[in-house]
Amino acid sequence: MTRRPEVFVPAITPFAQDGSVDHARFIAHAKGLLTAGAHGMAPFGTTSEANSLSVAERMAALEALVEGGIDPAVLIPGTGCCAAADTVALTAHARGLGCRGVLVLPPFYYKGVPEDGVFAAYAEVIEAVADAGLRLYLYHIPQMSGVPITLSLIERLLKAYPGTIAGLKDSSGSWDNTRAVIEAFPQIDTYSASESLIPKNVAAGGAGCISASANVNPAGIRRLIDGLGIEGEGALLEQVSAVRRIFEGLPLIPAIKAAVARQRGDMAFARVRPPFVETGAAHEAAIAEAVRLAGPQVAP
Amino acid sequence: MTRRPEVFVPAITPFAQDGSVDHARFIAHAKGLLTAGAHGMAPFGTTSEANSLSVAERMAALEALVEGGIDPAVLIPGTGCCAAADTVALTAHARGLGCRGVLVLPPFYYKGVPEDGVFAAYAEVIEAVADAGLRLYLYHIPQMSGVPITLSLIERLLKAYPGTIAGLKDSSGSWDNTRAVIEAFPQIDTYSASESLIPKNVAAGGAGCISASANVNPAGIRRLIDGLGIEGEGALLEQVSAVRRIFEGLPLIPAIKAAVARQRGDMAFARVRPPFVETGAAHEAAIAEAVRLAGPQVAP
Repeated sequence: MTRRPEVFVPAITPFAQDGSVDHARFIAHAKGLLTAGAHGMAPFGTTSEANSLSVAERMAALEALVEGGIDPAVLIPGTGCCAAADTVALTAHARGLGCRGVLVLPPFYYKGVPEDGVFAAYAEVIEAVADAGLRLYLYHIPQMSGVPITLSLIERLLKAYPGTIAGLKDSSGSWDNTRAVIEAFPQIDTYSASESLIPKNVAAGGAGCISASANVNPAGIRRLIDGLGIEGEGALLEQVSAVRRIFEGLPLIPAIKAAVARQRGDMAFARVRPPFVETGAAHEAAIAEAVRLAGPQVAP
Repeated sequence: MTRRPEVFVPAITPFAQDGSVDHARFIAHAKGLLTAGAHGMAPFGTTSEANSLSVAERMAALEALVEGGIDPAVLIPGTGCCAAADTVALTAHARGLGCRGVLVLPPFYYKGVPEDGVFAAYAEVIEAVADAGLRLYLYHIPQMSGVPITLSLIERLLKAYPGTIAGLKDSSGSWDNTRAVIEAFPQIDTYSASESLIPKNVAAGGAGCISASANVNPAGIRRLIDGLGIEGEGALLEQVSAVRRIFEGLPLIPAIKAAVARQRGDMAFARVRPPFVETGAAHEAAIAEAVRLAGPQVAP
């Protein structure tokens, strides 16, 4: 299947001094990402500290984005929680706002659960939301969730809900797994979690990337996508990979937020919720270098 | 420190046919456990499928227990969620009902987080609840949470909140760890997660156990506790260990629920929520044997 590759951003969630979600900065960051070339956003993902937000906080922040002028057609919010009731509420809410789809973690507290149970968890949400227009993206991030989205699970879900299962984000870091998903299920959109894998992902028939570091380098990643197959592709790939490599050596989420803060000249963006702590001075030089390598984030 | 050892039960959560929490069966099971000799309950733990329940479901079910006649002074409900706002709400709610304490998981989605961040997560909850009467039990279950409660974390929390940090449940399965906690912090109540460890736990100065299989064998575990140091202790330990060993070879939570269903002659107790699946016929013989070995659950 030929598809137009995309970069979606798991947008960071800014916090106010009192720890509440900072809607104004959230909207400003979102607009900046889209202006710089991101095709859309997958807010409330891992990088967004979504699991440190309550259901009410997530709903209010998503509404703020849409009311703030972000087209819901470019939003794929994360909605997967441990409790099905929460996942159902967030999914129906996102659909009600007109979001393009939802990115759904499996219930992630219990480990070593049977595939039948994970299938039942997704089925329960899809049946409860009961919306033919729902487009559900599966979220494979076993190093956090402890619950893998296996090939056989995808096959079963696609057979049961062929119009609903729209894609998968593979955050496992295993290209072999991503390739296997793309080859087995060319009808769905499979995203890599690293922009460094975009050329491989797109060549294999994948949909592009949903990457944490796209918070910092959306313009560079968009240039790579637009430049696939042209002479300068190698340099474009090296630019995004150089930025990404820096973050791979740092506490990822606090470092991404610190880099956004530095780019925007507004240290409030660096605030994190527990169990994270701000990077502080320790990684300042590395973060400055990542920002320098990312360069100006201007419209493509 | 000399303390009276206890068995607390992480009570299973029964579900009605439509999947909702079955308050009537929850109360009936709770009363049965206390009548059979349990000192108290730690509902909404791992065995309770608590993380498959929404905040509202947890509050309503806890209220049902208390309104149903269970003394809140024997309840230590689990209240730890990924989002601090949820943990705070559940903790304040449990305090408002007069519960003896709360058993609190660390935020468990993010892995590899710094100890400073885990400390900040507990501190945030304690500060937000702002209740001098709060008794908070730490929940160490790294195989599920991915976030260990280390000795140095306990030390920091005890130093900052000496009147609040009341104990720890060690579900790691490591007796060496439990012993180290008891030796380092004799002022708090440290529970093992297995009744087989009760003699060691109590001899070292621990507080007893909070064990999944206490849903099935509260009377046997109570007899062991009451019989510590007497001539028949070995036989009492062998009885509880024989029951427990069977469950250790089965899918734990569905098997515990199936055994309770068999004991009560009411298969509705066997219902589970995804991502679990009922044990079904596959383990029927083993579960019947566990129930036989547990024997009648009558008042001590």
